[in-house]
Amino acid sequence: MIDASSFGKLFKITTFGESHGPALGVIVDGCPSGLELDLDLIRKDLDRRKPGQSKLVTPRKENDDFEILSGVFEGKTTGVPICFLIRNTNAKSKDYSEIKDLFRPGHADFTYHAKYRHRDYRGGGRSSARETAARVAAGAIAKQLLSTIGVTFKGGVVRIGSVVAKKRDFTLVNDLNCVDPDVVEAMEKEVSTARKERDSVGAEVEVIAENLPIGLGEPIFGKIDAAIAAAMLSIPAVKGVEFGLGFEIAKKRGTEVNDRMREDGFVSNNHGGVLGGLTSSAPLVVRIALKPTSSIPQDIESVDKNLENKMISTRGRHDPCVGIRAVPIAEAMLALVLVDYWLQDLATKKAQENFFPIDPIKYGD
Amino acid sequence: MIDASSFGKLFKITTFGESHGPALGVIVDGCPSGLELDLDLIRKDLDRRKPGQSKLVTPRKENDDFEILSGVFEGKTTGVPICFLIRNTNAKSKDYSEIKDLFRPGHADFTYHAKYRHRDYRGGGRSSARETAARVAAGAIAKQLLSTIGVTFKGGVVRIGSVVAKKRDFTLVNDLNCVDPDVVEAMEKEVSTARKERDSVGAEVEVIAENLPIGLGEPIFGKIDAAIAAAMLSIPAVKGVEFGLGFEIAKKRGTEVNDRMREDGFVSNNHGGVLGGLTSSAPLVVRIALKPTSSIPQDIESVDKNLENKMISTRGRHDPCVGIRAVPIAEAMLALVLVDYWLQDLATKKAQENFFPIDPIKYGD
Amino acid sequence: MIDASSFGKLFKITTFGESHGPALGVIVDGCPSGLELDLDLIRKDLDRRKPGQSKLVTPRKENDDFEILSGVFEGKTTGVPICFLIRNTNAKSKDYSEIKDLFRPGHADFTYHAKYRHRDYRGGGRSSARETAARVAAGAIAKQLLSTIGVTFKGGVVRIGSVVAKKRDFTLVNDLNCVDPDVVEAMEKEVSTARKERDSVGAEVEVIAENLPIGLGEPIFGKIDAAIAAAMLSIPAVKGVEFGLGFEIAKKRGTEVNDRMREDGFVSNNHGGVLGGLTSSAPLVVRIALKPTSSIPQDIESVDKNLENKMISTRGRHDPCVGIRAVPIAEAMLALVLVDYWLQDLATKKAQENFFPIDPIKYGD
Amino acid sequence: MIDASSFGKLFKITTFGESHGPALGVIVDGCPSGLELDLDLIRKDLDRRKPGQSKLVTPRKENDDFEILSGVFEGKTTGVPICFLIRNTNAKSKDYSEIKDLFRPGHADFTYHAKYRHRDYRGGGRSSARETAARVAAGAIAKQLLSTIGVTFKGGVVRIGSVVAKKRDFTLVNDLNCVDPDVVEAMEKEVSTARKERDSVGAEVEVIAENLPIGLGEPIFGKIDAAIAAAMLSIPAVKGVEFGLGFEIAKKRGTEVNDRMREDGFVSNNHGGVLGGLTSSAPLVVRIALKPTSSIPQDIESVDKNLENKMISTRGRHDPCVGIRAVPIAEAMLALVLVDYWLQDLATKKAQENFFPIDPIKYGD
Repeated sequence: MIDASSFGKLFKITTFGESHGPALGVIVDGCPSGLELDLDLIRKDLDRRKPGQSKLVTPRKENDDFEILSGVFEGKTTGVPICFLIRNTNAKSKDYSEIKDLFRPGHADFTYHAKYRHRDYRGGGRSSARETAARVAAGAIAKQLLSTIGVTFKGGVVRIGSVVAKKRDFTLVNDLNCVDPDVVEAMEKEVSTARKERDSVGAEVEVIAENLPIGLGEPIFGKIDAAIAAAMLSIPAVKGVEFGLGFEIAKKRGTEVNDRMREDGFVSNNHGGVLGGLTSSAPLVVRIALKPTSSIPQDIESVDKNLENKMISTRGRHDPCVGIRAVPIAEAMLALVLVDYWLQDLATKKAQENFFPIDPIKYGD
Repeated sequence: MIDASSFGKLFKITTFGESHGPALGVIVDGCPSGLELDLDLIRKDLDRRKPGQSKLVTPRKENDDFEILSGVFEGKTTGVPICFLIRNTNAKSKDYSEIKDLFRPGHADFTYHAKYRHRDYRGGGRSSARETAARVAAGAIAKQLLSTIGVTFKGGVVRIGSVVAKKRDFTLVNDLNCVDPDVVEAMEKEVSTARKERDSVGAEVEVIAENLPIGLGEPIFGKIDAAIAAAMLSIPAVKGVEFGLGFEIAKKRGTEVNDRMREDGFVSNNHGGVLGGLTSSAPLVVRIALKPTSSIPQDIESVDKNLENKMISTRGRHDPCVGIRAVPIAEAMLALVLVDYWLQDLATKKAQENFFPIDPIKYGD
Repeated sequence: MIDASSFGKLFKITTFGESHGPALGVIVDGCPSGLELDLDLIRKDLDRRKPGQSKLVTPRKENDDFEILSGVFEGKTTGVPICFLIRNTNAKSKDYSEIKDLFRPGHADFTYHAKYRHRDYRGGGRSSARETAARVAAGAIAKQLLSTIGVTFKGGVVRIGSVVAKKRDFTLVNDLNCVDPDVVEAMEKEVSTARKERDSVGAEVEVIAENLPIGLGEPIFGKIDAAIAAAMLSIPAVKGVEFGLGFEIAKKRGTEVNDRMREDGFVSNNHGGVLGGLTSSAPLVVRIALKPTSSIPQDIESVDKNLENKMISTRGRHDPCVGIRAVPIAEAMLALVLVDYWLQDLATKKAQENFFPIDPIKYGD
Repeated sequence: MIDASSFGKLFKITTFGESHGPALGVIVDGCPSGLELDLDLIRKDLDRRKPGQSKLVTPRKENDDFEILSGVFEGKTTGVPICFLIRNTNAKSKDYSEIKDLFRPGHADFTYHAKYRHRDYRGGGRSSARETAARVAAGAIAKQLLSTIGVTFKGGVVRIGSVVAKKRDFTLVNDLNCVDPDVVEAMEKEVSTARKERDSVGAEVEVIAENLPIGLGEPIFGKIDAAIAAAMLSIPAVKGVEFGLGFEIAKKRGTEVNDRMREDGFVSNNHGGVLGGLTSSAPLVVRIALKPTSSIPQDIESVDKNLENKMISTRGRHDPCVGIRAVPIAEAMLALVLVDYWLQDLATKKAQENFFPIDPIKYGD
């Protein structure tokens, strides 16, 4: 209700679909006309999110083949809504029949029941993370649009359980999306141990956007970090978000963290690329905390629809660490915010050209 | 642009005004008809935010007397927009003349300049935290509305610099809004030392709402924690937000943090009162990290409008720790989200009554 | 851009698809949980809109079979987005190849070209009236929801060219949707003559909603007649909208048209069921004027992409009078507005129940 | 509720205030930075709307002096919300005490009571046409912005009761805003006779915008004529709106009204400047029908709060023909729609410049 399945203003997406229904998809409204759509880029990001890619994620296979139903003509966008359709093909609904009247702890089962009374409980229905496939498809278009002005994205896992990445090498390739070559092995162990012990483990993911125009964002409630925070918390399992130095900044003195400016750019980036809610030219750095997967194949205390005590063990096929596959989702959500604010900023700037010669300010690199 | 000065959907506020302009204020649209407005509650929250209340905050005096221009008749709301007006009376604009062409590091000066080219630089203009007085007034109405269904709010400072609150006593009274009696003194020292050394210091603030109906929030992009995250990041100086266990959860195993349910309620509250984006009946617990005040009375490297190196020392009268006065602001923003989602939920539930007997589910206490 | 393919706030629809693309469809977001969906009602309204139903409308066959992809579980809505998909199967794209670079007068070809530069010109693409099938499907759900509180809809053609309906019998069945038995024959002649002469003819359609709760609508810019006016003008070919006495009222004295109130209801309904933007209890009466079909199979002056003079004759298979098939579309748009405002009003009323005992006022019958 | 006091997306206004409260006003959000505000233009439009200007309108004096509280610095806009405040000074509230529990036929008294139960009944409170002063102030800024790209506005009264303007001379100066020199006298008689007979009379107003860019508007539900229709119906007393030939078009054949295109522009303008919801380069022509003033100083049947029969005679000081003063209001609402869509279009075009060389198409003059 109230537009809860939509995100963005000028570049707006609306997702639909349940985990075990016929299909899921997304409408992208506001993509400018004339963009030659690179379907491979979309497929690539969908594949990064897709389960079954390694032994460290769920062995569940999902077919993320998509069909474009509208908004593209002769390979190029036309400026009207683009609809992506992804059919659900490998749903094993019988896995879920026994939890029909039972709430899985840590899941939305209980709260959805309290709100709606009638829900598609199979695989979490609408609250399933499968919905994020639609976002990743939309985000891939956002990225492609932003790449036309040079904006780039990168992201990776920076913590799993007790193992923290000290270095940042976003080109590193491994099953965990870990960005520190020195801790890949330790992280793998953290995940495989959790899985063996029929448990799950939490994670932190960092995503970065670079080469952004200065001044993206709007004052007061339209701050770009506020929008990004909402975007990140809309991802299942996320319990916190921070920018730049993040929570560490609460421990510091102003003289330590106040980023000096010199004619060649910011001396440091504790502010994470956002000042007063507007982009500053420094890289936009966001980190999120993801809880351990709630679905655990162990008996755990819960209640049923009559609020009577029951034990529940979530079978199904679940990731031991949802953070790993969250990287392309977080990138997608970041791109969706940025492309929307870029369009808003274009409108602002274009309008102001009536009064000022608006040459974009170049600062830093 | 694009509604950036407005917040909320069914209960919507729109703020206006600059730090050194004639006035600031807020329009509250969507308050139901018939609420007997308690002006003392509004004044009380405004006083909590007001500078000049102790030696640990800025000695600047601001007159936060307000006038209600519309929407109230014979002491009660009428369901149409309520306009609050707060005149600016104690603005010392000359303090700011020297920074007209110079960007204060850590401030929005540079990014606003890049975006708008023409801005009211006095006291930060629109980006000044003075704007939050308008939010606090609106938030006080939101709180009053929610109190009619038993919802309560509390908040306090849980960290300043290196000093962390271990206990939570929200009834504690002190100049810092600190909630742990054992660390009040240490926190005071942290602030006074920073001030003496012409420096500033960061902080963490925690706010809690209790007795919420179950199921407030909407799916996917309408998650209540996503909206709260945006609300919190819209407060000046905030660099991170987390719910329940927050970033700590990334270090944990699922079996450790997955909150068990029993017939008498949740056994623990690591989830911070939100599951799947909907309220769960457990207290809603939010924490934010605030950076040290950017305005520091020391010479610091910066650039001017021509992007040439300059030194700048921000005089004016500034708080050494903005976290202290942020408590009522964070409460206000939390209340504004909750009242909006409560109204959304009323609509949902009321509509569903056509199909189900909707007795609200009681769970826990 | 800016949400142009979406309509409504609490009950929101988003349409997608082009006339000759793979499919069109609609997402309905905000339908309360628990509604047992009557698919026959949806099919019935789609059939009323469908071309090829009689010799007086286009012989073009369109397959309006729909598939529901989400939001319905075990036959009932779940409160999350419902996606309807309608495949395009009978598109004869080659009919349109010759107008690729030529603007059909009266059509959106020229203005879409000026705005987007790259467009799906086949059959009008996104600007084709085929898109209204999606609205009719969504409107059928809106009607079904409103029927649960007793609201009923009726509509018909009240003018074609020079022939005006004096009577109103909305149960009358004929190929024209004409509501006056005395003029059916004359109207048929008006249409068939126009067709024979390779011409088209204009029409007026009237739609009425009855048994509405009092007070639906919102003040100032949220007036329900304002929303209905926008809804009606969003239908292709509509050039005017009026309520109650409509434009006739400009000719009258206040004493003639000011609807008296008596304890048993309004004595007359010149106001058309809306006072101050809110429903009054009297039937809501809306009339729209539709222009003659722009596509005429005669040579007519136009220009091409280079703005050079060209003659054009629109072949394809077109209705000689678009008003006839507009009746279910106008009903759908009216229902979409009303259901949205009903939900808004529920929220208002439910919230006010904290302060007043809100028994709905009964007035009239 | 739900943003009902706000209008527009990129250029958004929010009005507040009641007829007899302390003040009314408007927040304009989205005006680009750098516009040198011409206060005289604002005053001029407010004066055109102001009562007491001639013997043919209400002798009631209203002080429409305004104060700008924000958003303007050194005479220029800064891109942040502009707040206009207009104090109410000449309210004669005692005139209304007797109608506290009695509904004036044709007014919003009954419907507001049914919706809100508690309302400021004095002078109609929020539903009073006095609120339109705020819109006129905001509209004057919109006009000024649009004048920077050459857009011009004109408007006038084209019908009062039985007297119709055949000619269009928008430069004509008279107390009625009549645009046909041949009928000014007859119109004056229509109004003065109605007044003498303690009655009121209806009217039609036409407003025109010229030199608009081609392609303003958005597809489907974002059609510019749909937005204008909503804007017009939001004006008190309006019962119908039409574009170009309007309702006359329902009587015509396609060959008669289908506007031919030649290389030098449209041959005719039956379409009123909008094709497919987008501006076409032809003048945008809108007409509205206004009902006779509902407040009539004669005894008329009505009911009171208990729905018991009562006679009521509305004293107060009212216009015999509300159409006369509606001209600047209709212009303001038209300008508010156009400026909003112009900004939307700028965003679209600017974004497309990444893919196409976008030289605006010049067509006609």
